[in-house]
Amino acid sequence: MDLAHRLERLGTETAFAVAQAAAAWTAKGNRVYPFHLGDINIPTAPHIIEAMNAAIADGKTGYCPGAGIPPLREALAEDIGSRRGTSVDPGSIVVMTGGKPVITKFLQTVMNPGQEVLYPNPGFPIYESQIEYLGGTGLPYRYVPTEDGFAIDLDQVRSLITPNTVAIIYNDLQNPISAESTAAEREAIAALAQEHDLWVLSDEAYFEMRYEGESTSITTIPGMAERTVILYTFSKKFAMTGSRLGCAVAPPEVASIFATLNTNDESCTTHYVQWAGIEALRGTQQPVFDMLDILRERRDETCRLVNEIPGMQVAVPKSTFYVFPDVTGAMQRMGFATVGEFAEQALYNTGMSFCTRQHFGRRQPGEERDYIRLAYSGIDLADIQEGLGRLKDWVASA
Amino acid sequence: MDLAHRLERLGTETAFAVAQAAAAWTAKGNRVYPFHLGDINIPTAPHIIEAMNAAIADGKTGYCPGAGIPPLREALAEDIGSRRGTSVDPGSIVVMTGGKPVITKFLQTVMNPGQEVLYPNPGFPIYESQIEYLGGTGLPYRYVPTEDGFAIDLDQVRSLITPNTVAIIYNDLQNPISAESTAAEREAIAALAQEHDLWVLSDEAYFEMRYEGESTSITTIPGMAERTVILYTFSKKFAMTGSRLGCAVAPPEVASIFATLNTNDESCTTHYVQWAGIEALRGTQQPVFDMLDILRERRDETCRLVNEIPGMQVAVPKSTFYVFPDVTGAMQRMGFATVGEFAEQALYNTGMSFCTRQHFGRRQPGEERDYIRLAYSGIDLADIQEGLGRLKDWVASA
Ligand SMILES: Cc1ncc(COP(=O)(O)O)c(C=O)c1O
Ligand SMILES: Cc1ncc(COP(=O)(O)O)c(C=O)c1O
Repeated sequence: MDLAHRLERLGTETAFAVAQAAAAWTAKGNRVYPFHLGDINIPTAPHIIEAMNAAIADGKTGYCPGAGIPPLREALAEDIGSRRGTSVDPGSIVVMTGGKPVITKFLQTVMNPGQEVLYPNPGFPIYESQIEYLGGTGLPYRYVPTEDGFAIDLDQVRSLITPNTVAIIYNDLQNPISAESTAAEREAIAALAQEHDLWVLSDEAYFEMRYEGESTSITTIPGMAERTVILYTFSKKFAMTGSRLGCAVAPPEVASIFATLNTNDESCTTHYVQWAGIEALRGTQQPVFDMLDILRERRDETCRLVNEIPGMQVAVPKSTFYVFPDVTGAMQRMGFATVGEFAEQALYNTGMSFCTRQHFGRRQPGEERDYIRLAYSGIDLADIQEGLGRLKDWVASA
Repeated sequence: MDLAHRLERLGTETAFAVAQAAAAWTAKGNRVYPFHLGDINIPTAPHIIEAMNAAIADGKTGYCPGAGIPPLREALAEDIGSRRGTSVDPGSIVVMTGGKPVITKFLQTVMNPGQEVLYPNPGFPIYESQIEYLGGTGLPYRYVPTEDGFAIDLDQVRSLITPNTVAIIYNDLQNPISAESTAAEREAIAALAQEHDLWVLSDEAYFEMRYEGESTSITTIPGMAERTVILYTFSKKFAMTGSRLGCAVAPPEVASIFATLNTNDESCTTHYVQWAGIEALRGTQQPVFDMLDILRERRDETCRLVNEIPGMQVAVPKSTFYVFPDVTGAMQRMGFATVGEFAEQALYNTGMSFCTRQHFGRRQPGEERDYIRLAYSGIDLADIQEGLGRLKDWVASA
């Protein structure tokens, strides 16, 4: 009765440990400012819940197709296509229990054990975990700081590719660093994918979580749709993280494999939640605008206050709900050797709870600066001000 | 841009093809009697839906722990333990998006590529699919007809086990054949598992779908809980198939792996549906009794009418909502060489839509009789009578 060897390669989201430490500190009677969560403290809009209940009343409580109910696949195709300026076939949509399942299903479909996949680091930790769990080799690629954010180190990406590399995971509008590609960068990634015949996972979880400008999908570049799977999710845009609703947009052959994987893994996504999803897409978009207004205000205040803290600096990102400040100076000033210790002491001394660079993949050789991630999606403006005020006092007093 | 080799080993539930054929025949204006679905045409009880809405109103719309929310894990531990006459620790419960995900997660956890797993055949098709998909070798074990149903061919099970066999999948109260172990048979399986140090997946999806007598879990036999994972589901008992809610009951080390797999695969199960689950377990059980009364009536009528058809016979099962009639005589009488053709012509000539033995795993050498599966969970009494009446006329007229 042994356990399978593949488990030795399974990673996870270590951010949960931060949530636990925060909960334990709260339980001891302390005030905590929760900047660690990629969750949203705004309710799902009532019209979406009403549509769900109407579906239940209408008997939509039984099993449904593994690929999702046809009307949701149609609504998704229309919405995703029109917002990207392309045409998407409903047959290329496979509904999933959130955006996350697209990651493992993509890798299961395109990567054999022993093959390599490029992924962003720092980046969403499940990429690395699933590449390695499924027997592949992850090739982490890095970002370099720029005037107004971060850019992919394209030379490094190029240098990492071997004949054994089968795919690249690309998370434009990036968690945790909020990087967004320039058109040139996106085209360079597309060109590399075509030149080396790579599959692409385009993680577009934050495509519509933006405060100015417009998002562009790599799938609109000629030759890309046929090699790209889009990860789409209702989680962020519609404040539906706990509803578990998302989809893949995939080339037809891949879509049909995803549907079979769904049938094997979980039969289908919760039936009536899919009807809620139709209303989210087709009903009023006012709640989305309202939420973005709230988040914009939080972003501005978070960035302003971070930049007032000695030894911390951050550019104002145009999208996502994360900021990724460089805290090297603050750490040096206070004598912290590791960002983990800095975060731990920040919690105990100020109540500020946040993730650090180390929650988003293994630190790479040559990394000299230290970063933390502040998520402002789960904390109100007044608490942002209070928490960052305390952090400033703590750092300034050192 | 190739596809991964593992996909060549991926199976599916071929029963979907039957549903499609039925839908196509209906679309052409024909009357169809749906006996092919393991789904339930009875609504989820209103108090369960109300609890879900109360949870939504209370803000339970965000992410929640990968293992499930603590109050649901407690309610499950209490309910599952007390109905089995054992004590279950909430820490051994991992909430999943239905019972089905337990199958792949169990196999991922206990089976390496190249190892063998015993599974029932005919049986739920995802066992075979996932064993092979994950690189294992499935060892199908058979059932033999008895006076009042079917029994596991224990000699065959014994003869199949090799030093390379790591687990047995055991589905007491069986889909599709509605077999139920005697105490002696269950103990023999337990003894084999202990003697050969096997993990056990006890698929208890139908544990409470019974019309007389009491179910017994193999986990109550000494030495079994520590090597067994129970598959539990809300799908059948609470008419919640489309809600996607279930759990694994697993030894602590396995439970913690399952939670990490959840974090990797889908983050968590829909948050507010978990609150609905608590109400299902803790609230009034009257709707469960009412549903079982309806199903009992359907079972009795189905069996009575099947046994009136020339060349068909079936024993009355005490559990599940399937019957698995031997149709060899009817096929011979009508000159059908394969049960697939028989089913196809039955649809076109009578509107009767059902699965056959071939939807539940590969036919094994030495199988001489032919069987179909009638699911009576998704069809009302009057339609049962009408459909089986037509089938009788068709067979009798040959
Ligand atoms: C980059 C990225 N991709 C995917 C996801 C998956 O989110 P979900 O599974 O809730 O859709 C997240 C969630 O935080 C994310 O940050
Ligand atoms: C034997 C058996 N196990 C497991 C399941 C899984 O059901 P669910 O995923 O809806 O809980 C089923 C459903 O038909 C079944 O028949």
